[in-house]
Amino acid sequence: MIKKLLIANRGEIAVRIIRACIELDIETVAVYSEADRDALHVQLADEAYCIGPTSSKDSYLNFTNIMSVATLTEVDAIHPGYGFLSENADFAEICKACNITFVGPSPYAIQKMGTKDVARETMREAGVPVVPGSQGIIADEEEGLRIAEEIGYPVIIKATAGGGGKGIRIARTKEDLVQGIQVTQREAETAFGNPGVYIEKFIENFRHVEIQVLADNHGNVIHLGERDCTIQRRLQKLIEETPSPAITPEIRAEMGEAAVKAAKAVGYSGAGTIEFIFDQQDQSFYFMEMNTRIQVEHPVTEMVTGIDLIKEQIKVANNEKLSSKQEDIEFNGWAIECRINAENPSKNFMPSPGKIEMYLPPGGLGVRIDSAAYPGYSIPPFYDSMIAKLITYGKTRDEAVQRMKRALSEFVIEGVFTTIPFHSKVMDHPVFIDGDFNTKFLEKYTIMESEVERKG
Amino acid sequence: MIKKLLIANRGEIAVRIIRACIELDIETVAVYSEADRDALHVQLADEAYCIGPTSSKDSYLNFTNIMSVATLTEVDAIHPGYGFLSENADFAEICKACNITFVGPSPYAIQKMGTKDVARETMREAGVPVVPGSQGIIADEEEGLRIAEEIGYPVIIKATAGGGGKGIRIARTKEDLVQGIQVTQREAETAFGNPGVYIEKFIENFRHVEIQVLADNHGNVIHLGERDCTIQRRLQKLIEETPSPAITPEIRAEMGEAAVKAAKAVGYSGAGTIEFIFDQQDQSFYFMEMNTRIQVEHPVTEMVTGIDLIKEQIKVANNEKLSSKQEDIEFNGWAIECRINAENPSKNFMPSPGKIEMYLPPGGLGVRIDSAAYPGYSIPPFYDSMIAKLITYGKTRDEAVQRMKRALSEFVIEGVFTTIPFHSKVMDHPVFIDGDFNTKFLEKYTIMESEVERKG
Repeated sequence: MIKKLLIANRGEIAVRIIRACIELDIETVAVYSEADRDALHVQLADEAYCIGPTSSKDSYLNFTNIMSVATLTEVDAIHPGYGFLSENADFAEICKACNITFVGPSPYAIQKMGTKDVARETMREAGVPVVPGSQGIIADEEEGLRIAEEIGYPVIIKATAGGGGKGIRIARTKEDLVQGIQVTQREAETAFGNPGVYIEKFIENFRHVEIQVLADNHGNVIHLGERDCTIQRRLQKLIEETPSPAITPEIRAEMGEAAVKAAKAVGYSGAGTIEFIFDQQDQSFYFMEMNTRIQVEHPVTEMVTGIDLIKEQIKVANNEKLSSKQEDIEFNGWAIECRINAENPSKNFMPSPGKIEMYLPPGGLGVRIDSAAYPGYSIPPFYDSMIAKLITYGKTRDEAVQRMKRALSEFVIEGVFTTIPFHSKVMDHPVFIDGDFNTKFLEKYTIMESEVERKG
Repeated sequence: MIKKLLIANRGEIAVRIIRACIELDIETVAVYSEADRDALHVQLADEAYCIGPTSSKDSYLNFTNIMSVATLTEVDAIHPGYGFLSENADFAEICKACNITFVGPSPYAIQKMGTKDVARETMREAGVPVVPGSQGIIADEEEGLRIAEEIGYPVIIKATAGGGGKGIRIARTKEDLVQGIQVTQREAETAFGNPGVYIEKFIENFRHVEIQVLADNHGNVIHLGERDCTIQRRLQKLIEETPSPAITPEIRAEMGEAAVKAAKAVGYSGAGTIEFIFDQQDQSFYFMEMNTRIQVEHPVTEMVTGIDLIKEQIKVANNEKLSSKQEDIEFNGWAIECRINAENPSKNFMPSPGKIEMYLPPGGLGVRIDSAAYPGYSIPPFYDSMIAKLITYGKTRDEAVQRMKRALSEFVIEGVFTTIPFHSKVMDHPVFIDGDFNTKFLEKYTIMESEVERKG
């Protein structure tokens, strides 16, 4: 039984995990970098230890120091959150070796899904639809050119070790492709220590639709429906919702089944997400990647299913069975999440760290805030710029959107620029309201151009 | 169609109503007393007007000034919230005369239910169970004594114009009764301008269970299940939950049916609540009173039904039909509300007005805050001491309770005493956790005695 748990993360997700632990009566140990001494997760945990200087490499990615704290505080488990060590198979392996439960899937599943070309092949073998493309890593440019001819341009070059929008390049011509392969390989070598790239047909104008899965160590795998994360800027998600305004119950069932297959193919355990490319034209979908961790946008799924995903993760890590069967899962209402970043949307989303002089989150019916911000908190410039997730819930999409507009309008964050005005404009945009858009939404429509600059 | 609405109230309920209006795209007009210049409802409304000095009598109860603002700002409707003018039939009548929609039932229904002995007789005639007692107001002490002999002591003396815990006295003996009648009559004459009292059997050790009803102007009346408001201090509700841990689906259905009958008996329109005495021993229930307005504890019902009660009130006032039929109403999960008051629970709940130096409400899954507080806000000593409603939601009662404990533990309000530590102790109390308690809970169990005093 997990009695004490270390949270190897910071920010809102560390707070989220601490909250779940308190509700489960599990003691918590926070870790923090020197820049995070005054962070909320440090204040909310039962114990907190500094694990190194500001840089992530020396603190939140520092295996040795994190494992030292874990050992000294005698925790039973480590929750990695998202980012940082969450998809690091080596770290999961070390936890195992130290007899500490890693809240997440096996190192094998992380490895398999983290190596993009392997994941692709595993999915293909499991019968999950994949985008036409190379079988595994391409040997050389020649192979790349041959495959591109076969599947037709444009194609996308992907680093097998990449993810989160990094190590990706689109090629519309032969010349693009030759150059793109070289650049992506070099980049991937530098960033991930692995130059391998593979090629896929580039599907334009798609929607990003993903399926949340939950699996336990007793062979049970279920899915909790989809999240539509189509509103992105430079491959970074900004707004997520569930259900998707674009898919039918039939597609949901098919996609859910495919996701369960995918999870089973790697003996998955815990919470995971299968991301799909969804082509609205012909209603086809293709495996994009699997995130073998909790995702930023998990709250929208919690709102419509009532299931606490972090608690489920911990229960599974505790070797318990899933608390629900597939047929018990009900979807009620609609939920939308806006990621509130400390960025200036009128200045090309330039990061805006600094002190939050005044802070008052919105409240009332159907409003949820996941944040580590507080009045007087100084947002450090060293990490992610996301400072709050604002989630609204309604009986219908229209109600959730109206509620989001209302909640955004009353959210007070003074002292830094935030993406609140950007989100307000999206919520007012007829195409967004209509629900018929694809990942090009922000390229196609100007949201903030005429916005007068104004500080918090 | 209501396009612009005046909120004749203050505090969290004014904020709650403004939020619903924003979501419905209705313009809002706030009114405020001189003590409330810096209040949140004033900041959130589209327009705001001072209607008089600090005293409620001169401001929030000031018909003339409120109607002047309503007329000058050309609003279509007035929402009275709870308290103040919400159950004032004269005010509803004046609105009607001025051709402004009063968001609430007809003056007739308010009058009928506000006069407690008339309500009692109306309910008896409609077939709703009432507590044994006098038929209407007692003529004199003799009649009181005769009835008390018939139904047996203890009895309760109630002012027909009373309510909210005022104008009520218990008599356990003849002597008690004679004196009680005199005192209650005098008190009622002074407080309500109506000395009429009636007598009922006093049921001890009961639970307070109430049913939320919704009715439109087209003859549709539905109920949204019960709220259990058994945890009270001196007849003031402190903690409310739904469902009730004490009632069965059969009792819920019977009580719901009785409540619908009650509403129909007075041609009710809008949101209302029928309060019942529930006797756990024999599972019987009796009509206590009807509140012809929205109630403080309405959010718990919203959490489990997904229905926005303030929006429904406004839609009904707009002559629309109810958005749901009885068979559409589903109850999902469990919700609990704790009223956070600026009071010192270690000092007999002494009010603790003053400046909130630091304010950070809890967040995350299943947590809702309805409040008009903010960092730096000065709580005036002139009104209600409630500064926030903390509502938690879970799949089960246990989850809702655990979440409440967690949310209470992270709620930061510095500068004033609050009832947060009191609520934390109740949530930890085995009898509360067990769910088997009655309105004597706080008399029977010492919650705060040994509490060390500590400021914020």
